[in-house]
Amino acid sequence: MSGETTITIIGNLTADPDLHYTQQGVAVAGFTIASTARTYNKQIEKWEDGDALFLRCSAWRDLGEHVCESLRRGSRVIASGRLRQRTYETSEGENRTVVELTVDEIGPSLRFANCEAKKAGRTNSGGTRNRPSGDGNDPWASTSNSAFTGNYTGDEPPF
Amino acid sequence: MSGETTITIIGNLTADPDLHYTQQGVAVAGFTIASTARTYNKQIEKWEDGDALFLRCSAWRDLGEHVCESLRRGSRVIASGRLRQRTYETSEGENRTVVELTVDEIGPSLRFANCEAKKAGRTNSGGTRNRPSGDGNDPWASTSNSAFTGNYTGDEPPF
Amino acid sequence: MSGETTITIIGNLTADPDLHYTQQGVAVAGFTIASTARTYNKQIEKWEDGDALFLRCSAWRDLGEHVCESLRRGSRVIASGRLRQRTYETSEGENRTVVELTVDEIGPSLRFANCEAKKAGRTNSGGTRNRPSGDGNDPWASTSNSAFTGNYTGDEPPF
Amino acid sequence: MSGETTITIIGNLTADPDLHYTQQGVAVAGFTIASTARTYNKQIEKWEDGDALFLRCSAWRDLGEHVCESLRRGSRVIASGRLRQRTYETSEGENRTVVELTVDEIGPSLRFANCEAKKAGRTNSGGTRNRPSGDGNDPWASTSNSAFTGNYTGDEPPF
Repeated sequence: MSGETTITIIGNLTADPDLHYTQQGVAVAGFTIASTARTYNKQIEKWEDGDALFLRCSAWRDLGEHVCESLRRGSRVIASGRLRQRTYETSEGENRTVVELTVDEIGPSLRFANCEAKKAGRTNSGGTRNRPSGDGNDPWASTSNSAFTGNYTGDEPPF
Repeated sequence: MSGETTITIIGNLTADPDLHYTQQGVAVAGFTIASTARTYNKQIEKWEDGDALFLRCSAWRDLGEHVCESLRRGSRVIASGRLRQRTYETSEGENRTVVELTVDEIGPSLRFANCEAKKAGRTNSGGTRNRPSGDGNDPWASTSNSAFTGNYTGDEPPF
Repeated sequence: MSGETTITIIGNLTADPDLHYTQQGVAVAGFTIASTARTYNKQIEKWEDGDALFLRCSAWRDLGEHVCESLRRGSRVIASGRLRQRTYETSEGENRTVVELTVDEIGPSLRFANCEAKKAGRTNSGGTRNRPSGDGNDPWASTSNSAFTGNYTGDEPPF
Repeated sequence: MSGETTITIIGNLTADPDLHYTQQGVAVAGFTIASTARTYNKQIEKWEDGDALFLRCSAWRDLGEHVCESLRRGSRVIASGRLRQRTYETSEGENRTVVELTVDEIGPSLRFANCEAKKAGRTNSGGTRNRPSGDGNDPWASTSNSAFTGNYTGDEPPF
């Protein structure tokens, strides 16, 4: 994929994420991120909330399942993904177009909270209903391995 | 601040983050994120790791303390912040310039792991050594409040 | 302003930009950028156009006037700005919400074309109808000055 | 390519871009963008320049040739691309690492200037020395065509 419009958004979930499965058994989480910019009001010398941006998001497979297990209404997150446009027909036969975010990476923000990584649990089916369940390995360990293979072996950058 | 060069980086911590305090008692966490791009090798029909980008990062105050309490070597993170350049003199009297990231927001990635938000603990001093310790409130609750005041009261976007 | 959702989009103008003036005489250009991602179809070993993202944009003051003088239907541009959401009432009394881009910086892409900087012309009124007209100075010269004052005097980075 | 660290930078060229050719005859332009953030000084109620970020950039093939024909010292640009790290050995045998930007898209900013698209000239060899010279077609026309084929035929977004 080339030339997609990527975006990073920081905000809070407006509700608990929903988990659905496609007919092929692929997991997809749906949720909305509300991002509120703040402006400095010189008159009263205080920061004020601006208008919120509400962005509808979807996260697929493992990522979607982890979103549903880890986040809930009010969770502050940092998310990056690709902006997409979707046109649908209303029940009145009108065409509507919405802008949505296909999330590639998301995590709970550490700005106001600590977070503890948990092993992927029993319910983790690898993002599909038909795949064998997760092996319960330390998630960081495997992440670490995959990211550093090939050209990185030590603890420090090679310079 | 206007016109800064912002960036989002996704990768793994190369080591446990370091926590330091400035002479004024302000907390700052230092760590390095290694981001590895992957290319599709058509000949062997497999994805291959490309060269890693190692970016030195700093996170200040509460955010820095939460980073040190929540992340460790190998943690996969999504981080956004501002690129900065710093010039220093080596012990040989040479000038060197490094590019660094001042982190504004960071979280553990949910791509390969679940995460559980923890209440800010006893050791949370609000990012400085002299401030009274944290109150132990539910971090999401307060986040939620501050983000939604003013122009948002319901569960759903206002449209 | 803090915490806004910024985005960079690359695409083509779907029509000539429109120039309007607010009641206060402030110029604002309106236009739509169509950004088309491309995917590699392994079966036929060719790149294919994906769905387009159409983003409605506004550029204010001088920037808006320069957009209208420099760009036209089909122009490929690179633009960055802040995502905004706007809710309006239709003639049927329904609420609709659209996502728009407030452009902070935009330029014609050099990917498929050369571009020549032109001096700001007679019609350049500084982005408002009541301000005195532009002075016709070399635009690059002044840009260069303002960007390098204070901490930069030579031809090369200070390292 | 997946997982690269992309960035958009806005700033001014510190010098005229250099055009080189690889041994295979591929064009590559080298240049440095200086980006200066501005902070609002409340005491004196004025904006002040912050430290500049100097980012070394390379643009390849046609894009590189267009950069050299269209931009010069002081030109304000908006550029997006991928951050890369390169390690080299100094003449003293020391390893040094630099962060550079591989530019994917760049254009002269319209913030302080107008720009006129020019047809690709005689010297445009398609980014390599051995390819036949450019055909002189209207660059926008071809851009427009390629972007809108397949799923877009009218003047307006399909909604």
